[in-house]
Amino acid sequence: MSLDNCRLEQQIAFIECLDQLKQVLRQNLVMDESRRENSAEHSWHAAIMVMILGEYAPQAMDQVRVQQMLLLHDVVEIVAGDTFCFDVEGNKDKDERERRAADQVFGLLPPDQDRELRALWDEFEAGLSVEARFANSLDRFQVLLQNVNTRGGTWRIHNIDKARVLQRMLPIKQGIPALWPVVEHYIEQACAQGVLRVGEPEA
Amino acid sequence: MSLDNCRLEQQIAFIECLDQLKQVLRQNLVMDESRRENSAEHSWHAAIMVMILGEYAPQAMDQVRVQQMLLLHDVVEIVAGDTFCFDVEGNKDKDERERRAADQVFGLLPPDQDRELRALWDEFEAGLSVEARFANSLDRFQVLLQNVNTRGGTWRIHNIDKARVLQRMLPIKQGIPALWPVVEHYIEQACAQGVLRVGEPEA
Repeated sequence: MSLDNCRLEQQIAFIECLDQLKQVLRQNLVMDESRRENSAEHSWHAAIMVMILGEYAPQAMDQVRVQQMLLLHDVVEIVAGDTFCFDVEGNKDKDERERRAADQVFGLLPPDQDRELRALWDEFEAGLSVEARFANSLDRFQVLLQNVNTRGGTWRIHNIDKARVLQRMLPIKQGIPALWPVVEHYIEQACAQGVLRVGEPEA
Repeated sequence: MSLDNCRLEQQIAFIECLDQLKQVLRQNLVMDESRRENSAEHSWHAAIMVMILGEYAPQAMDQVRVQQMLLLHDVVEIVAGDTFCFDVEGNKDKDERERRAADQVFGLLPPDQDRELRALWDEFEAGLSVEARFANSLDRFQVLLQNVNTRGGTWRIHNIDKARVLQRMLPIKQGIPALWPVVEHYIEQACAQGVLRVGEPEA
């Protein structure tokens, strides 16, 4: 395209690039179990949850930034791909791969927007602010809901045990304390239903 | 689920219901042309565009409300289905079908959130505020980008002509005037490439 408007061309190039997130498949399923969820629809689901569950923030926070972080948090997967949270090997170099991907994807934008969106993504990744912790908790809680609504979903398919799921969900305890009893309830229920393995104590 | 927390149960029921938007297929394609786009990923794409193109608002506006409207604008399709914009028959009772669907879907929420989200959806549908017009324009501009990146997409597949596309895109001229030259540019280009029919004057 040639619009004689370099800024707008860069912005549209970024928007067009985002389309590729619709092709990045996550491990978990959509709730009718017909297929794996993609990262674009996952991001939509997590972002809209802010409007519903924002009231459970443990302290005053900027809901707008939480929503923006969740809209953005996975766009690096366009280049780096999705790394399954229980994939030990894939997670070893995940941070470095995703940082390089962020340079590339956000680098399509005009410099001021590159800096602005990158700062949001960096904040999410660092997980230190109350907003980042809340966003990270919703990201995990969304997966929990997908799994409990698909007979255990990835827990069942990949034979994950309760201890690892509890470990994975633990940030919710700090990020959205009010949701923690729900998380525990769902995990207990999944164990009782036999779709989440309780695991054996190590010898 | 029984959480002894009616409010949270209602909120989670709504969030679980939202998953079904991932199954609502739109007419337009994703950019690699491998499949039709669904309404959840379309909503994500349109909502994130607010962060990039918000600066082109023709007057002061609340970007947060625009983003929230775009996250929400299609959820009624969970019940009412997607109505193709060029489907004359389907559009006759679209408003009534979608209003009933909104009662049903937003009605899953606690009453205060039902009112709050319904007000945003009603505002988007009415299209009177600067925020609603901006959101509506991004909704249409997103489809334009999908079509120009898929060799005409739905224009080509459904043999739509230039006059109807211009008519469909016209709200952008008022909603985001700065984008209108881009819209015209893309439409001219699509005609030149033969993926958008110029149409014959009526006899």
